[in-house]
Amino acid sequence: MMAGTLGDDDEVLQGEGQIIREYFLPLTGGLVAARGLADDCAVLAPPSGMDLVMTTDSLIEGVHFFPGDTPGFKALAVNISDLVAKGATPLAYLLTLALSAPPTRSFMARLTADLKRAQDAFGCRLIGGDTDRTPGLMTLTIAAFGYLPHGTAIGRDGARPGDRICVAGTIGDSGLGLRLRHDPACFAAAGLDDASRHALVRAYEEPRPSLAVGPLVRQFASAAIDISDGLVKDLGRLTATSGVGGRVAARRVPVSDAARQLIARGATSMAELLTSGEDYQVLMTVAPEDITALAVAAQAAQVAMSEIGEIVEGSGVVVLDGDGRPLQLDVTGWDHF
Amino acid sequence: MMAGTLGDDDEVLQGEGQIIREYFLPLTGGLVAARGLADDCAVLAPPSGMDLVMTTDSLIEGVHFFPGDTPGFKALAVNISDLVAKGATPLAYLLTLALSAPPTRSFMARLTADLKRAQDAFGCRLIGGDTDRTPGLMTLTIAAFGYLPHGTAIGRDGARPGDRICVAGTIGDSGLGLRLRHDPACFAAAGLDDASRHALVRAYEEPRPSLAVGPLVRQFASAAIDISDGLVKDLGRLTATSGVGGRVAARRVPVSDAARQLIARGATSMAELLTSGEDYQVLMTVAPEDITALAVAAQAAQVAMSEIGEIVEGSGVVVLDGDGRPLQLDVTGWDHF
Repeated sequence: MMAGTLGDDDEVLQGEGQIIREYFLPLTGGLVAARGLADDCAVLAPPSGMDLVMTTDSLIEGVHFFPGDTPGFKALAVNISDLVAKGATPLAYLLTLALSAPPTRSFMARLTADLKRAQDAFGCRLIGGDTDRTPGLMTLTIAAFGYLPHGTAIGRDGARPGDRICVAGTIGDSGLGLRLRHDPACFAAAGLDDASRHALVRAYEEPRPSLAVGPLVRQFASAAIDISDGLVKDLGRLTATSGVGGRVAARRVPVSDAARQLIARGATSMAELLTSGEDYQVLMTVAPEDITALAVAAQAAQVAMSEIGEIVEGSGVVVLDGDGRPLQLDVTGWDHF
Repeated sequence: MMAGTLGDDDEVLQGEGQIIREYFLPLTGGLVAARGLADDCAVLAPPSGMDLVMTTDSLIEGVHFFPGDTPGFKALAVNISDLVAKGATPLAYLLTLALSAPPTRSFMARLTADLKRAQDAFGCRLIGGDTDRTPGLMTLTIAAFGYLPHGTAIGRDGARPGDRICVAGTIGDSGLGLRLRHDPACFAAAGLDDASRHALVRAYEEPRPSLAVGPLVRQFASAAIDISDGLVKDLGRLTATSGVGGRVAARRVPVSDAARQLIARGATSMAELLTSGEDYQVLMTVAPEDITALAVAAQAAQVAMSEIGEIVEGSGVVVLDGDGRPLQLDVTGWDHF
């Protein structure tokens, strides 16, 4: 990286106008709502009969990503994850970018290529934003918009005793990837191969909430939440909002082959995987009579959906180990404060 | 301010959940779209036949506000200004807050009181957001939503030669207020009284875009923009997008009594007022045949609307002084890069 700039080539971009025209405008894909990024506002005509779902999340350098990273993909992914957990279909987003130095062409090309891959993966486009210089840390804030049929958004508040707890994808890979980013050799003693290491880092850097989960949430979930701060913590939020408790069987929690290998070699633990967070997978509760239909629909949609526990009367979340004893968790997940 | 906290009392708030429940939840005013701030997403059912207008702007400590300030009012105002310039009626907003230290009760009370005054002034409510700790600088990012009848949003691109250039409110007060914040004694030699000084600082700290301007934009404007980076620069953006030029008569630009006094005493200049920015007033172009009707409607709406110039063929913005000579402007306005 050149001193005093973001990026490592020598052509520094000089104005907000140039950045918008050359790098952000292509991300609109000509969407009318973006008004050519020349208008301070986006204007959306919501599809008839649809509710608009909106969410916002920030990624801050040194907090959510490593200095030198250009986390365009992740910035969008963490927002899409929130939309999917409501059952919504992504549509568009606003990007607020605070840059800690004048950006070079190489930096902007990398950042916008990441955003482009993400918006292609998630089916949405840029419609506006704000670009600032900051004497502080680089920050990407996205506000993302999706839609769903009027009145069908799924909240955290509908879980009832007897409902089954289900989760999409695998849990804990991102936390392991974060450890690898801090220390690339940390799992060397456990004999983890390059491909697995790469996959774990990728889970941290580029989480992939699955759009196919949204319709399953809408059709089958009594409550849903995406796992950003740890499975136990986010399940705890869902059960608290619903006024119920949750019981999870640790051995039923889906983990990747790499995670399983690291558990077997003592390099991680189920407790770590359940609390490390940034999974960006959907956790949902489903009435017992719907669980078979969900399994069929998930298979048809090629979604790996695992039943991991049950909603119970009371409050709090208990994770049971293979012997039916409560797992000791030092923390339940991530809190910023 | 206590070392290591934001605010000057000793009760430090410990978790995002507590901040949301005790300080942000009241700002929703029970709006259903906010889902009790317990859901990661807001869900808006857009009014039938309406387009949704969305915009986002950040305020960064040390860039857009002074360390120690809690610019809740301004953070919302600068976004509302964008909505008004499109002709939209404000509805709701998302707040992303990056805090540089754990906040105290006094800090959160001050910040949310500022936001409450702003949302009451602008007729909108909080529906969601994101709160983070940052090792960097305190930053407030708002994404604001408004609505207007389908297809009626006014852009920057509709100005035609012969259209009159009009501006709401007065120009340059905020820039003078900023100078006062840097040096409270800077206008002492010019004999500015306390009330005027206070009013200028207030124009900087709490800009007041007028909601009454939105309907005038919708009804009469061929193009419109809000003045954030300076009248000349923002008019230049409007004329560039419309493919026309602009001619402004400096003596017709509305200024406050305080600004007039400072010009008379040589403490500021028209050039400064026209380029200092952060006015958050609407600049609009109006077909000549509509100018009388606009004047009548503006008076009925109690909006101070001034005609300051004309759209011409060509490109660029020229400001003419009292003798019809082009005013020399060293800069046209503010650019972050």
